[in-house]
Formats: sequence, structure tokens, C-alpha cells
Amino acid sequence: MTGGKRTAVTVLGLGNMGAALAKAFLAAGHPTTVWNRSPEKAAPLVAEGAAHAGSIADAVTAGPLIIACLTTYDATLEALAPAAGELAGRTLITLNSGTPSGAREMAEWATGNGARFLDGAVKNVPEAVAKPDTLLYYSGDKAVFDEYEQTLRELGGDTRYLGDDVDLAALYEMAVGATLLPALLGFFEGAALVAKRGTPASELVPYTVKWLEMIGSVLPKFAAEIDAGDYSDPSSTVGLFYAGSAHDDELAAANIDVSWREPMNDLLRRAVAEGHGEHSISALVELLRKPEPGAARSFN
Amino acid sequence: MTGGKRTAVTVLGLGNMGAALAKAFLAAGHPTTVWNRSPEKAAPLVAEGAAHAGSIADAVTAGPLIIACLTTYDATLEALAPAAGELAGRTLITLNSGTPSGAREMAEWATGNGARFLDGAVKNVPEAVAKPDTLLYYSGDKAVFDEYEQTLRELGGDTRYLGDDVDLAALYEMAVGATLLPALLGFFEGAALVAKRGTPASELVPYTVKWLEMIGSVLPKFAAEIDAGDYSDPSSTVGLFYAGSAHDDELAAANIDVSWREPMNDLLRRAVAEGHGEHSISALVELLRKPEPGAARSFN
Ligand SMILES: NC(=O)c1ccc[n+]([C@@H]2O[C@H](COP(=O)([O-])OP(=O)(O)OC[C@H]3O[C@@H](n4cnc5c(N)ncnc54)[C@H](OP(=O)(O)O)[C@@H]3O)[C@@H](O)[C@H]2O)c1
Ligand SMILES: NC(=O)c1ccc[n+]([C@@H]2O[C@H](COP(=O)([O-])OP(=O)(O)OC[C@H]3O[C@@H](n4cnc5c(N)ncnc54)[C@H](OP(=O)(O)O)[C@@H]3O)[C@@H](O)[C@H]2O)c1
Repeated sequence: MTGGKRTAVTVLGLGNMGAALAKAFLAAGHPTTVWNRSPEKAAPLVAEGAAHAGSIADAVTAGPLIIACLTTYDATLEALAPAAGELAGRTLITLNSGTPSGAREMAEWATGNGARFLDGAVKNVPEAVAKPDTLLYYSGDKAVFDEYEQTLRELGGDTRYLGDDVDLAALYEMAVGATLLPALLGFFEGAALVAKRGTPASELVPYTVKWLEMIGSVLPKFAAEIDAGDYSDPSSTVGLFYAGSAHDDELAAANIDVSWREPMNDLLRRAVAEGHGEHSISALVELLRKPEPGAARSFN
Repeated sequence: MTGGKRTAVTVLGLGNMGAALAKAFLAAGHPTTVWNRSPEKAAPLVAEGAAHAGSIADAVTAGPLIIACLTTYDATLEALAPAAGELAGRTLITLNSGTPSGAREMAEWATGNGARFLDGAVKNVPEAVAKPDTLLYYSGDKAVFDEYEQTLRELGGDTRYLGDDVDLAALYEMAVGATLLPALLGFFEGAALVAKRGTPASELVPYTVKWLEMIGSVLPKFAAEIDAGDYSDPSSTVGLFYAGSAHDDELAAANIDVSWREPMNDLLRRAVAEGHGEHSISALVELLRKPEPGAARSFN
């Protein structure tokens, strides 16, 4: 900011992530007001210099910029409802996970109440907030992003604007986030397996980290195959993965619940049955795409 | 090797991975004999200087060191059976994926036929073979690993020995590999989602790569929680993931088949029901561990 004066920021929601955001603003010298439904979560931030708003209306009126990090858009709508009349002329930025339609509804509600609105997503854990490499992306009102970009950069150095469509950040959030739970379950399963042999999960970590890097390194090829719709030059085939699915029996024999893998193995089985056995594993994307209802009708 | 003479190597199996292994040995100047069930796959390697063995017996007797990279242990056993009598005094190293019990059977068969045996796994794609950072690990006969370590390093600079138990490499292979299919499906799902908006999968790649790095960065904390059996200081809760599972409705509305996620969401639902809602997501490992049959009986 000109003259070095930092924008006053209000942070709504002091869960794991919201508290990390508020801490980052405080550390960067922004006058920071905090609010949380359960007020006791404000105490550690007040100790670090935050102002505590006792009501949502006080929180909203504390400054020009309101950053909300509640669990969901619905929770955000519910929390903000009593202060809807105070939003006009202010800027609301939401940083929760959610769906594109949730983002659109949120935007409609906020702008309907006279606020400017930007949606975003924190693509990292609370511990990584404020680090130079931490990724956050935003979509919606470009003027809001431009005006507050420096402030938003306090939350992570890799701060990006995806585009005008307000639901783009949520769309990317869903698309990019889709690997998280399945990858973690794979790690937990591996941890359960090696534990049977007395090996701690922590010994698995460096190998899994390297493995995740390997997975990242093959995505450009898979993406190119998907974008071209051409799976005929595989480096790893559907058939190979299908053969590997038989390994689950050994996990099951070790008393590990592999039922979460069953529909994945089903996809492999169907892909082989549909003639993808010798195709790249990326051909699975074709099975995830269900026929459009319209397209199906046209064949009736 | 003393005097710079390179060990003669026989490579059995010239699929995507086997061919890459043979190429690496050729590039490093090892006299290399190749064999494949479908002999035509040998041609490109012969063009690069490999000797082609027309029968499995010729392949096995071509030198002291045989490296097999077929789809499975069963395929390897089947392919080697006609040459069982020629194995005595030679060394067999298998580099396929498989299960710990498969590795133990393979070892028993090989040593029963008088061969020395080492099992290993290539933790990367064929394109990465021979690179300095590529990880391979081995377990079993330490004397074999020590004798051929320099030769094996031609396949990847990050070459490690895990321990005497011959099934350790396969155990790690299963445990580490457990993230692969689920993570890829997550990426394919994301690709299907952004495609609905005209965004190519390749635009998703840099974000997903960063996201996988993020996942890697949180594993040490999750591993420590699992090793301690203490999930009470979460940075991401089961409840948060459970709330996120509702997003699948939007994927389904976009005509994406989310049925592969259902048992994962079931695990989240059960974890919440069992009181893990406020615990770290790593608590899911407790649900993947089925009670040992013995333990269950003692409560009857
Ligand atoms: N934690 C992570 O690793 C992470 C990473 C990336 C993105 N995110 C996203 O960040 C968002 C917040 O996550 P978190 O980890 O901070 O979650 P959390 O620790 O569970 O905190 C949830 C917050 O939402 C508030 N809240 C929920 N429902 C509410 C309602 N109806 N009215 C008012 N307040 C309500 C809670 O208030 P109370 O304290 O009163 O319950 C709390 O402040 C989520 O969308 C999450 O997906 C989190
Ligand atoms: N590709 C990867 O990205 C990758 C990465 C890490 C580990 N691996 C592991 O490496 C191993 C080989 O993978 P790949 O990608 O090379 O597979 P692939 O391209 O499908 O090749 C399979 C190989 O096994 C042979 N084979 C299968 N059944 C046989 C039998 N009964 N008798 C004789 N030969 C038989 C095939 O011979 P034909 O040519 O005659 O069919 C071919 O040489 C697998 O265990 C895999 O999990 C692969």
C-alpha cells in the first residue's frame, strides 16, 4: 500500500485454516479483526494483537475487507446472514473449499447485498500459510484481486488469479483436490501393511514422497493422452494395473480392509472388458465420463 | 568392475519396463542378452547391440546374471520353468511388481533350483530408468546385492538395499504403490471435470503436481500420528473431509462417475460415527485395520 499502511482485514472463522490466515495478517502488520462462532478460539489471536469482534455485525463493519474461512459456503451464508445489511460497499473473499455451484450462490448473495466478491482456495495446509511457495488461487471480480493482491500475497507467495468466472477457483479446487483423499488412503493402507511387520509409517514416508513425485512426473504424458483422446502409446497399461489389482488379496489376508479399492478394480475390469487392456491407464478417464443424458436420449 | 569389464546381463521380458532395463544396460556397455516370449520385441534392442536368445534356456545360460521383468511372479515362474535345470550357480533378480508371498515363492523356487536370488522393484516409469534420481530397492541375499550393486546402479542412481527378508521389497512395493491408482483416478476425475468447461487436462497438471508435493509434505505429521496412535492434534480433521464428500454430488451432476468414491465416503461416515470427527484424517488408518481373527474370537 502507498505509504506502507496495511489494509485492515477481518477474518471470519478461526478453525485450523482461518486461525493460520489471521496469524499471517497479524505477522505482516495488518490491523486484523477476528470473529468465530465459538468465541474462545479468538483468544490466542487477540494475544498476538488481533481485535476481537463479539458479533458478526461488528466483524463485518470493522473494515473494508472481509475474509471468510468457514467449513463450507452454507456455513458462511449462515454466519453472515445477520450482517447482510452491513455488507454494502465492502469486499468479501471466501477461502473455504466448496463446489462451483456453491461459489456461484455465494457470489450472488454477496453481490446481491452490495458487496464486491472474490472466491479463492488455499492449496495447502495451515502450517504452510504465508510461505513463499504456498499456492492460493482466486476467481471472480478482477478489480478486487488487483486491489488486494499485495494483501492476499501475505497468505502465500504463489498467489494466482484464474479468471472472471467466479466459480473457477472452486472448480479447480474440486479438480485438483480430487487426488487428496484417495492418495492419503493409499498411504494409510501402506502404513497399516508395514506396521504388520513392525515397520513404522515414518519409514515409509521418504519412499512415498518420492513416489508422489514420480506420479507428478507422469501427469503431463497422461494429460496429453487425455486431451488428444489417444491412449494407444502407453507407458503403463490398463492391463498392468488390472494384474496388480490381484495384490489386494494379500492386503486382505493381512487383515486390511480393501473394500475402498473394489470400485477402482471394477473400473479396471470394465476398462479391460471394453478393450482398453493395452491402452494407457489414462484411458480410465473415458469410463469416468458418463454419457450426457442428452446424448443418450438421441440414441433411443 | 576391475579392469572396466562390465558384467554380462540377461534381461527376460521386453515389455515397457524390461525394454527400458535392457536399454540401460546396453547404454552402459554391458554385454546384454535379451529374451521375450513374443520374440519380435527383441528387434529394437538387437539393433542397439543386444544378443537375442531364441529360447529361455539360451537366455539363462548366456551369463551369470539374469534380470527378469515380466508382468508377475507367476509369469516369471512359467517362463523360467523350461530352464529350471540351467539355473544352478547363476543369479536371478526379479524386478516385477508383486506381493510379499509371491516374492517368497519365487525365492524358494529359484534357490531350490540352485540359483542365488534377489528381489527388487523399480519405483518409477520406464522413461526414468537409468536416471540419477530414479529409485529402485532390493531385498534378499545381501551378497548378491553387494556383488552386483554397480551393475544395478545403471538402472537408477537411487538404488537401495532394504534388508535380508526377501519379501521386503515386495512389501514396500505394495505399501508405497498403494497411492498410485487412487491418485491417478483423482487426477483423471479432475481432468474430466475441467474438460466440461473446455479446460484441457494439461492446464490442471502444474496445480496437481504442486498439490501432490503438498500431500508429500504432510505425510511426516500423519505418519507420526499413526506411529503414536494419537490423532488428537489434527491439522485436517475427518469431519472436514466428511463435509467435503458432499461435493461428489456436483461431480455426479456433471455426469462424472463418482461411484469409485463411495466406499471412501463410507469410511469417512463410519469414522465420524465412531467418534473420529474431530480427529486427524490419519485416524482412518484405524478403520483400515480389521480386527485380527484371533482378537475377534477372544471376545466371543
Ligand atoms: N485444514 C486444512 O488443511 C485445509 C487446507 C486447505 C483448505 N481448507 C479449507 O478451509 C476451510 C476451513 O477449514 P479448517 O481446517 O479451518 O476447518 P475447521 O478447523 O474444522 O474449522 C471450521 C470453522 O468453520 C466454522 N463454522 C462451521 N460451521 C459454522 C457455522 N454454521 N457458523 C459459523 N461458523 C461455522 C467453525 O466455527 P466453530 O469454531 O464455532 O465450530 C470454525 O471456525 C474448509 O473449507 C477447508 O476445506 C482447509
Ligand atoms: N510400466 C511401468 O510404468 C512400470 C513401472 C514400475 C514397475 N513396473 C513393473 O514392471 C513389470 C513389467 O511391466 P511392463 O510395463 O514392462 O509390462 P508390459 O509392457 O505389459 O510387459 C509385460 C511383459 O511380461 C511378459 N509376459 C507376461 N506374461 C508372460 C508369460 N506367461 N510368459 C512369458 N512372458 C510373459 C510379456 O511378454 P509378451 O511381450 O510376450 O507379452 C512382456 O514382456 C510389472 O510387474 C510392472 O508392475 C512397470
